[in-house]
Formats: sequence, structure tokens, C-alpha cells
Amino acid sequence: MIRAAIVGGTGYTGVELLRILTRHPHVELAAITSRSERGRPVAALFPNLRHHLDLAFSDPEQAPLDQCDVVFFATPNGTAMTQVPALLAAGVRVVDLAADFRLKDPEIWSEWYKIPHACPELLAEAVYGLPELHRDAIRQARLVANPGCYATAVTLGFLPLVEANLVDDQHLVADGKSGVSGAGRNPAQHLLLGETSENFAAYAAAGHRHLPEICQTLTKATGRPIKLTFVPHLVPMVRGIHATLYAPLQAGAQTALGDLHSLFVERYRREPCVDVLPLNSHPDTRSVRGVNLCRLAVHLPMGSDTIVLLSVIDNLVKGAAGQAIQNMNLMFGIEETAGLEDIALLP
Amino acid sequence: MIRAAIVGGTGYTGVELLRILTRHPHVELAAITSRSERGRPVAALFPNLRHHLDLAFSDPEQAPLDQCDVVFFATPNGTAMTQVPALLAAGVRVVDLAADFRLKDPEIWSEWYKIPHACPELLAEAVYGLPELHRDAIRQARLVANPGCYATAVTLGFLPLVEANLVDDQHLVADGKSGVSGAGRNPAQHLLLGETSENFAAYAAAGHRHLPEICQTLTKATGRPIKLTFVPHLVPMVRGIHATLYAPLQAGAQTALGDLHSLFVERYRREPCVDVLPLNSHPDTRSVRGVNLCRLAVHLPMGSDTIVLLSVIDNLVKGAAGQAIQNMNLMFGIEETAGLEDIALLP
Amino acid sequence: MIRAAIVGGTGYTGVELLRILTRHPHVELAAITSRSERGRPVAALFPNLRHHLDLAFSDPEQAPLDQCDVVFFATPNGTAMTQVPALLAAGVRVVDLAADFRLKDPEIWSEWYKIPHACPELLAEAVYGLPELHRDAIRQARLVANPGCYATAVTLGFLPLVEANLVDDQHLVADGKSGVSGAGRNPAQHLLLGETSENFAAYAAAGHRHLPEICQTLTKATGRPIKLTFVPHLVPMVRGIHATLYAPLQAGAQTALGDLHSLFVERYRREPCVDVLPLNSHPDTRSVRGVNLCRLAVHLPMGSDTIVLLSVIDNLVKGAAGQAIQNMNLMFGIEETAGLEDIALLP
Amino acid sequence: MIRAAIVGGTGYTGVELLRILTRHPHVELAAITSRSERGRPVAALFPNLRHHLDLAFSDPEQAPLDQCDVVFFATPNGTAMTQVPALLAAGVRVVDLAADFRLKDPEIWSEWYKIPHACPELLAEAVYGLPELHRDAIRQARLVANPGCYATAVTLGFLPLVEANLVDDQHLVADGKSGVSGAGRNPAQHLLLGETSENFAAYAAAGHRHLPEICQTLTKATGRPIKLTFVPHLVPMVRGIHATLYAPLQAGAQTALGDLHSLFVERYRREPCVDVLPLNSHPDTRSVRGVNLCRLAVHLPMGSDTIVLLSVIDNLVKGAAGQAIQNMNLMFGIEETAGLEDIALLP
Repeated sequence: MIRAAIVGGTGYTGVELLRILTRHPHVELAAITSRSERGRPVAALFPNLRHHLDLAFSDPEQAPLDQCDVVFFATPNGTAMTQVPALLAAGVRVVDLAADFRLKDPEIWSEWYKIPHACPELLAEAVYGLPELHRDAIRQARLVANPGCYATAVTLGFLPLVEANLVDDQHLVADGKSGVSGAGRNPAQHLLLGETSENFAAYAAAGHRHLPEICQTLTKATGRPIKLTFVPHLVPMVRGIHATLYAPLQAGAQTALGDLHSLFVERYRREPCVDVLPLNSHPDTRSVRGVNLCRLAVHLPMGSDTIVLLSVIDNLVKGAAGQAIQNMNLMFGIEETAGLEDIALLP
Repeated sequence: MIRAAIVGGTGYTGVELLRILTRHPHVELAAITSRSERGRPVAALFPNLRHHLDLAFSDPEQAPLDQCDVVFFATPNGTAMTQVPALLAAGVRVVDLAADFRLKDPEIWSEWYKIPHACPELLAEAVYGLPELHRDAIRQARLVANPGCYATAVTLGFLPLVEANLVDDQHLVADGKSGVSGAGRNPAQHLLLGETSENFAAYAAAGHRHLPEICQTLTKATGRPIKLTFVPHLVPMVRGIHATLYAPLQAGAQTALGDLHSLFVERYRREPCVDVLPLNSHPDTRSVRGVNLCRLAVHLPMGSDTIVLLSVIDNLVKGAAGQAIQNMNLMFGIEETAGLEDIALLP
Repeated sequence: MIRAAIVGGTGYTGVELLRILTRHPHVELAAITSRSERGRPVAALFPNLRHHLDLAFSDPEQAPLDQCDVVFFATPNGTAMTQVPALLAAGVRVVDLAADFRLKDPEIWSEWYKIPHACPELLAEAVYGLPELHRDAIRQARLVANPGCYATAVTLGFLPLVEANLVDDQHLVADGKSGVSGAGRNPAQHLLLGETSENFAAYAAAGHRHLPEICQTLTKATGRPIKLTFVPHLVPMVRGIHATLYAPLQAGAQTALGDLHSLFVERYRREPCVDVLPLNSHPDTRSVRGVNLCRLAVHLPMGSDTIVLLSVIDNLVKGAAGQAIQNMNLMFGIEETAGLEDIALLP
Repeated sequence: MIRAAIVGGTGYTGVELLRILTRHPHVELAAITSRSERGRPVAALFPNLRHHLDLAFSDPEQAPLDQCDVVFFATPNGTAMTQVPALLAAGVRVVDLAADFRLKDPEIWSEWYKIPHACPELLAEAVYGLPELHRDAIRQARLVANPGCYATAVTLGFLPLVEANLVDDQHLVADGKSGVSGAGRNPAQHLLLGETSENFAAYAAAGHRHLPEICQTLTKATGRPIKLTFVPHLVPMVRGIHATLYAPLQAGAQTALGDLHSLFVERYRREPCVDVLPLNSHPDTRSVRGVNLCRLAVHLPMGSDTIVLLSVIDNLVKGAAGQAIQNMNLMFGIEETAGLEDIALLP
């Protein structure tokens, strides 16, 4: 059994880690920490876990994290980077669900996250935990930076196109839509049901923190700097991300929709957590709710020279906790989808 | 008083026309027709009108349409074109809220609507009822083709840019999101709350009927064929359209966000039904719910050469019934916003 | 023109007062106060008011409240009672939308609101502002205590039955359901869309603050203490209250549904803001959204000796701001429904 | 392995049976029938099952139902009763998720379901499939009538009280609230998101079909006719039932909340699918979403002599498919909760 702990487990990412790890066949949950909730049974905060998990929140200072095989950080940005070096030194492997280790360049990181990086020396070692791109590195990794939710949906969509060098990678557009759970569980006026229900709006149109992460990954895949315009939006629902991606064909290039579809099918043929849909599909976010799966559909609209990709994930699963556990499975050499075999509720 | 009638008033566009016309200071509602509901009091079908409107649905064959000043068609596509010629001959002016008279080319119309056009001879005369573009022609028009809901939001957003010849008009992208009322009130499995709530999906990615309408208008504005990729999506809410528009700057062009903003402010300075928001705004669809207003925000994301426009309307008001009444006001020489001065409910 | 001010206008009740008063034909809005938002244009906080209302929030200490004809308190419970005496002394009339003056007995008030009452001497004078019960007193009142939202829906439903002495008033049951806007606009975790959407739950089953208010009113109407069990619930929607009321017939009593219906029709025949629906109706909360109206339906289920009443209001209108303005209209001798003639949006 | 088939699997109950049975450790799914969808892969209709279930809908006439161990009927009311006799004769056991076998008296059945009963001779044999009441009979049953969704939530709530003879069973009140999936997947105007979102209303206040079923069960439990008033309501959400139950204490009776709570804890101590919550709880419907569990909380409001029970289930699980599989597990002597051990998604 893998001894696992969660640091900072009172948010939506935390409860989703708990839900999956509780039923994971190879994991023993050793501790979950929370300063504010220490001593309180986890099931009192998250009633879905009542009678499933008999564990209370621990004080972060007293939890036996260094005796675990793996520690998940489900903390706000800026926390993991202060604690990871000691854990690694103790031989503990780490999956950080926040953004601390996602960018390779500490200056770019500081520009977007507005504080200096506390351990820039680990950025080179940290593996960006997108299994579809870095599976082998993840297997060996001491420290995995779990990708952002939008970044997962957007990157998996564009990846086959930029790898194949088919599109004008200076004019990529990603229009992202997310359920409100992506914004977390902390009280915030703009996330009240009274403010978000029966409403739709964009946010951060001037620049969102997942942008540099996507650009870094795609740039590395193509070998030259790509340019992406990314606008996220808030959808009046709880879970789900839908990324609609627009990639203009390179000037003069021609392609048939069937060939494009084959490109995607081939690229992801062996991927257990990516599902390329048949031609003419429009994936529903609900079809992957609770499930560690990215569903993709490819379109080439009538008379257009712009490829359209529809990419859906559950922001809390393939966009966070599920992918973190997929990474853990790889790190410990067990079945990649262990604990991740649920079927989505429908409706 | 303007004597007005509505043909086909049992859908969402119909009830919205009724709501606005009932309180319009210069309109007398003479008749509303429905074959299936004939004889039934309107307020029995639409309880919001109880004690406000004392009218029953008429049989379409018996309603005194030819004695009205104006007739609104709130019918499915393909109905108005069979009845309009007789009404015009009787001296009645017409606003068609369906698509019958929106396209100038009857072949393109047939291609998208899958039936031959019944009176192609009227297509040239029909005025596309976007007051911000065709105000003078609308004033004189016998027949107004009320724009589609997406078309209104998208066209008002791109218009200043293409008129100013600022952008690469061969690579425009419009990502549209609509509440479900845009799909009408007829029973349909995919529109059940059980199917649409807690879900988000694109539809018609291969081509949506509002695309040729937008292209026709923008092409006429620029004087040369523009190219647009348009993907609509269904949002789990009742009312509202949010169009996110992406326009790459022309190769080599440079612009400052402040100048772009001024361009929009100037273009719409005298428009009572378009509101250009201050810099760094993200309009909420709910802020225009029930209101005949398009709100626009312009962004130029960090380091990007792609302009982003956020455009919101209420699909049933500025996207349908409200704009139809704005057109009627113009046709009859009364205050353009008469009957259209509500304040949105918030929350 | 009536010079009106609002104290504490940053919540949902405040913005609803603003929406209605902005378009009220006989009101001039002199000031709206907010300590936290002072100096900020109201329309910057509430974009639905942009271009409709040119007013900024004032500092509560500096607003010329004593020069107004009427002041509305849209403050948390416990605030109005500290400021009302000075305003009354200055000849200003007051409508308090909070609970400070709803209960006649200061001890019961303190028991429910957990603080001592600051001016118990005004409790006798304050008029409970339910126009359907206290219209004449409201006309003369210096101080009106605007009823609670649940209290309005529940009281208007039970009133004809207890006045007619038809039911076992020791076993009344009120099952209340409210949209989340009733809980206000302050950030609170349990009101996030992520917590409330796709969920339904009761709250305060052991006792809710509107209970003593309802009991006080019904007890006064019957002349003897009534007993009511009241359980409120949170509905995943923004606006609307639905109260389902159960009243057992007195032992041995018999009644026909038609007679019951006539009783309600008669009781509310002259009431402009109560609408008794035809037999066999099930009122929708959305049919009164944004509207100052209580809709009632009466049922006598098959084989049952328990009367069922369905009562719906918009919690922010007939349950708060609208009723406050109805009260103001009465206090100043103008048309009772002035400013309150909107038609609900549907859908 | 148990060979199972589903008749009529295109509705919400059908897909939920499929979701659970697909992962059930002791079941082999032999066939699912649908006249309208015959030949179509199940996963094409229900994308959550893609890559999980490789089965197509069969023609009802050709499916090898009589070679199965158990057949589930997920058909409209009135279908199962025409097919069950032949299946029983062939030695197949049956769980009917519709209402055909729920009432013992064929006349009462016909009164509520408006058609004559096709095999009244089986009504006496059919076991009403509430395991908490009829576990032993279910184990032996050839034919199980799976309870209605409201009936499950209401009956489990009242049962301990009427069994203990504590309450005035002539004046029970059940106020039911259900998500829209309870109304099925067939297209219907009143179930469109445009009609149900941001709305709350009662329906069938004059009498709902689950009423006689509840009365029959409680009457049998007490030994004398009970009287219940039951009003159902539609909640703007997909899944979940919340029943709020009101039971007046018998005249002169006294009880303490702690004793009431103990009564419930004792009654359900050994029940794996009923969870009595601690004192002062308000169960969320979402806490049992997707899960075969009824959660109960008991309250005795301040100064009241009416007991309040809060009872939540997922209408499609403990209210339909989950309970059907719980019954099947009992019938075949396997672990009662096999296949039913999911943890609810939260949020």
C-alpha cells in the first residue's frame, strides 16, 4: 500500500482527492492537514465521506508527512514551495496541485504569481504532470507539478496539431469555459449563487495564469515560441471545463477533416484518459463529470481554414485530483487508471 | 396609436413581444394568432400577463391582420414568406423575427434553410433590421428582417473593427454562448433541464445558420468578403447571449488598447441601445436581462496581436422582440426606445 | 415629489429599492448610504443601473437623511433601531426593511435576535406593514416595520382561514422554500453556487426568526394564540418564495373546495397586490419574479380534511423592497401601486 | 454471475440501472431492450457508458429475456403487467421499477392509473420492495414491486413513528420536493430548462399517485388506516428528493427530542442504506447524489408538538435503480450493497 497524505484538504480539490483515494485499491490515507479544521472529522465537513472515511484533520505541524510515500499539496499557490524541499530531502515524493512548480522560469513565475519563488532550484527537476506528454519522466519523478485545469483541456487539444506542425501557431485561440468549482470553496461574493446563476461572463480577458503554462508546453512541443490568445469564462454550473480551440491552418495548407480526425485518433490511441470522439461530435461536460477523462472532438467548419477543437474535462478530476492520482499511479508503478474507473452520472 | 398584431405568439419570442407591447405607450395590440391555442386567453398560457392583457389567441385565418399598421411574425422559419406579400399589398408593414428575409441571395438562403424561398422578389427590398447600421432604411421600410440573436451580438462587436479596416478579416473567430430560451419553447429532449443543467456543450460546430447572415453584413460593411469561424454553445441558463470575438490585427499593424476603446466609444456614441463599457470590463449577461441593450467591452490581451471583444445581449430582447420593437418605433417615427426603458433585475 | 433616502444600500434589498425607486413617478432619490462604498457610483456596483441612476453612495454620517420625507432602512437587523428615533424627531417617516420593529414584545425580540432592543418605546407605535391587514394604520404611520419575506407569503395564505375561524389553529404547518437571494449578498461559503446548485436542503428547522412574527400577526387576527410549525428550505434559484401551507379543518368541520376558494376571492377582491388563482392552479414563483404580487391557490386534496394553500412571492419585491414601496405609497397618499406595475419576465 | 436484462432502457431509470449493473461484481448484463432504439449501441445514447459497456439495444420481441435470471422493467406504468406472467412462468424473477405491482387492491390501482389491471392475480404475491420493511419476503420473492421515489423517502421517514404509535396518524403531512429527473426523459414542454430553471412550483396538489402507496405501507405497519396529506414540488435541479415530514404528537403525548432521535437510530441501526444523522442536522440532497442511501434527520421545533423529519434520497438511486439492485442482491443472496458502494460527488 502507498502511504499518502494531503496538505490543505478543505477545498474542492481536497475533497475530490479524498473521494478517490478513499476507494483506491493501493492507497492508505495517512493524514490530511488543515490548520483551521484540525481535530474535526473529515466527514463532518464533507458529508459524502460519512461512513466511508474515518479520519480527522491534523495540525500541519504535527502530521507525519515525512513518513509518507507521497504527499499531495492541495494548498493555495505559494505554500507548497516552502515545504517541498524538506519532504524531498526526507525521501517523500510530492504531487503539487497548485501552480508552484508548473513554470520553468522563476521570473515568469513571479510575474504571474506576484511573489518571488521560494525554491527556484527545484523548477528544473519538477516534472509537468501531463501523462500524455511526460509519462516516462513522471514515473521517475520526485516532484510532479500537476497541470492547471484549463491548461489540461487546452494543451491536450492543441498538442497533436502543433506536434504535426499543421497550423499557424502564432494565432491560436482558446476560449475556455469553467464551472464555478474551479474558483474554489472560499467565500467570495462574486461566486454566490445569487451572482453567478442565470449569468455568463468572461474574466481575466487581459491575461490568465494558465496562459504561460500552456505556452510553455506547446512551445516545447514545437520547438519554437507559439502565440495563444486565451479567454476564460464562468459557467453557471458546478463542475466541468469546455475549451473551444481555434487553430488556423498554415497559409496555403490544406487538409481534410478525416485526416485531422485520424491524426487525433492516432496520437491518443494508447491513452487511457483521452477519448477522441467520432466525427461530428459535440462532447458534453457532464459526460466526464467525476471521471478522469478528456474528451475531444475535431471539426473543420464549412468553407473554413480554421480547425475547431472541442475539449472537455471535469476540472476537479482530469483537471486536478484525478490527474494527480494518475500521476501518483505512474510514480509508483501501478496500473495508471487504478482508482479512476468510475462511470459518470448521467443525468 | 399603432395597431399591431403578432402572428404565431406561443413561443418565447411571442410572449416577449406581448410583455413589451402590452406596456408600450403608443401601441394597441389588435390580435395575436395561434392555430393550436385559438380561443384561449393569452394569460392562461403566459401567467405573467394575467390582469395585464385581456386578449385571446385568434385563428390565423380570421385575425384582422390586414387592418393593422404593423404585423410581427414570431413564427418558425418559412412561414412569414408565404404571408408577407399579401400583407404588404394591403398596406401593412411587417417585422419578421424569423430568418425568411435576412439573406439577400435566395440560393444561399435555400442552402441553409433547406427549402426554396417563396418570395425571392422581396429579398432586395427587405431591410436588415439592425438600427445601428440601417437606421434610415428601417424608417422607410415596408418589410424589416429582424436579425438573429447571435448575429446581433456578433455583428455589433465586429462592426467598428471591420469598418475601420483594422483587422485581418479573413480570420475572424466568434465563440457564441446562449441560454436555452434561444432554442425555443417546443418540447425537445435535448432541452430538458435534466439534459442541459450542470452541462455545457457546443453545437452546430460545422456551421450555424446565423453565420451567412453575419458574413453578409460584415462583407457589405467592408466591401470585400470576410471570413468568420463561428461556434455556438448552450449555457445552462434561460436568457442571455455572450459572444467572445477574436480579431487578429492586420499583419504589421499596431494599436493601443486606448485607441481601440475610443473607436468603439465613438462608433456607438449616439446609439441608445449599445453601451460600450469602460476599459477592463467583463459584461455580465444578467446586466442586460430583459433589456434592449448590447453591452460591449474591448480587450487587447498581454503581448497579443489579437483583439478580444466581449458582447452581451438578452437573446429575447435585443436579440429578438426588443429589437423588433426598436425597429417598429423607427418605422413609425416615434421615440426609438419607447416601451424599451426597463431596468434589468439584479440579481 | 417624495424625497427618499436609503440607508445601507449595497445588498439585494438595496439594489431592488433602487431599481424601483429610480423609475417611480413620484419619488426623487436623495441619497443612498454605505460606509464601505462611499463615494463610489451606485452604477459601478450595480451595472443594471448604469445610465439610469446618477448617484454615488454617501457616507452615512454626512447624508442629509433628516431632510428627506422618507428613509428606507435596508440594513442588517439591529441598525435601524439606533437611528430611527432621531429621524422621527426630525419629522422624517421611516420604513424599516429589517426586523427591528416587527415584534411588539421587546423580550421576545431579544430572545430571537440575541441583543437588547435599543428603543422598545417605539414598538407599540410601529405599524406592521402588511397593507392587506393594516392599510389604514400604514397611511398614518411615522414608522413602518416591513414584514419578513417568508412572513408575507405565509401570513397572506393563512389569514382568510384564521379570520374565518375555519381551521384547527393549533396545528398549522408552513413549509417555506426560498431562492438564495433571501440570504443576502454578503460572502458566505454555504451560499456559493458550488454549494447550493444541484442541491436542496432545509435549514433552521428548530426555529426561524420569521416564526414569532407570523404567530404575532395570526394570533392578533384570531384573538387567541395560534400554533405554527414552520420549516424553511433553500432552493437552487436566485429569487422567489413558495410557501406550502397546511391547515387541518377543525374537528367535525366540513367544507367544500368551492366555498374555500370563494372565501379567498372575497377576502382579497380589492387587493391590488394579491391574486387568488382559479381552482386547480399551482402558481410558479417565476410568474411573480420582479413583481409586487402574492399569488395564492387553494386546494383540498382528495379525501383529506387538511386545506392546502400555495403562496408565491418574489422575496425581494412583495417580500421586501416592493412591499416597502407599497407602504410608502400608502403613507404619502399616492396610488398604492405607483412604480410597481412591471410585468414579470417569462421565461 | 447473475444474468440480468432490462426492458425499456432509454429513460433515466434505465441509464442508472446500466451505470450500476455495468460495474456490479456479480452481474452479467445480457440484454437491454428498446423498440425505438433497437440496434443502436447503448453508449451512443448514453455517452457516460462509452468504453464501459459494449451492448446495443435489442428488439423487445427478440431479446432472450426468458433465459435471464432476473429482468428489470424500466418501462412506463402499464407495460410490465402484460409481460410479467410469462417471465415468471419461465422461471425468471422480476423487479418492476414502475407502479404496476405496488398496490394490493386492483380497484384502487385502476382508480389512480386509469386503466384496468392486466394481472390482478399477481398483486398479492408481489413483494413491495422496501428492504427496510420486507427484507425477508424480498429474499424469497419472484416478483418485486420497486417503491416509488417519493414513497421511499416518505415511508422511511414516518415508519419509526407510526410503528411506535407515537403520533396522530390521522394528520400526517408530507411536503415532497424532487429534481426534474423524476419526471423522466421524454420531451415535455413543462420540463424544459427554460420553463423549470429559476422557478419553483407545486404540482398534483389534489392527489399524487405515490399517496396510496405510502398510505398502504404505513397503514399495514400500524394496523389501522392512516391519513396523509402529500404535496409534491418540482425543484430546479436534476437529481434528488427532499421530503419534509410533519407528524403531530398524539394529544397529550410528550416526548423529548433525544428520545425521538434514539428511536430512529435504533430502528435503522442495522440498515446499510439508511443513515440517521446526528441531532440538529439538515441533510443535503447532494450528499446522497448517485448513492443508494436515505439520510434522515429528526427535529422537534421550539415549543412545538409536531415532529419534523427531513428525509433525502437520490430519486434515481435509492428512489429507483439503486433500490432495485439492492432488491436483486437480496433475491440472489449476495451482499446487499454489492455494486452500491459509490461515494457521492461533492461538490
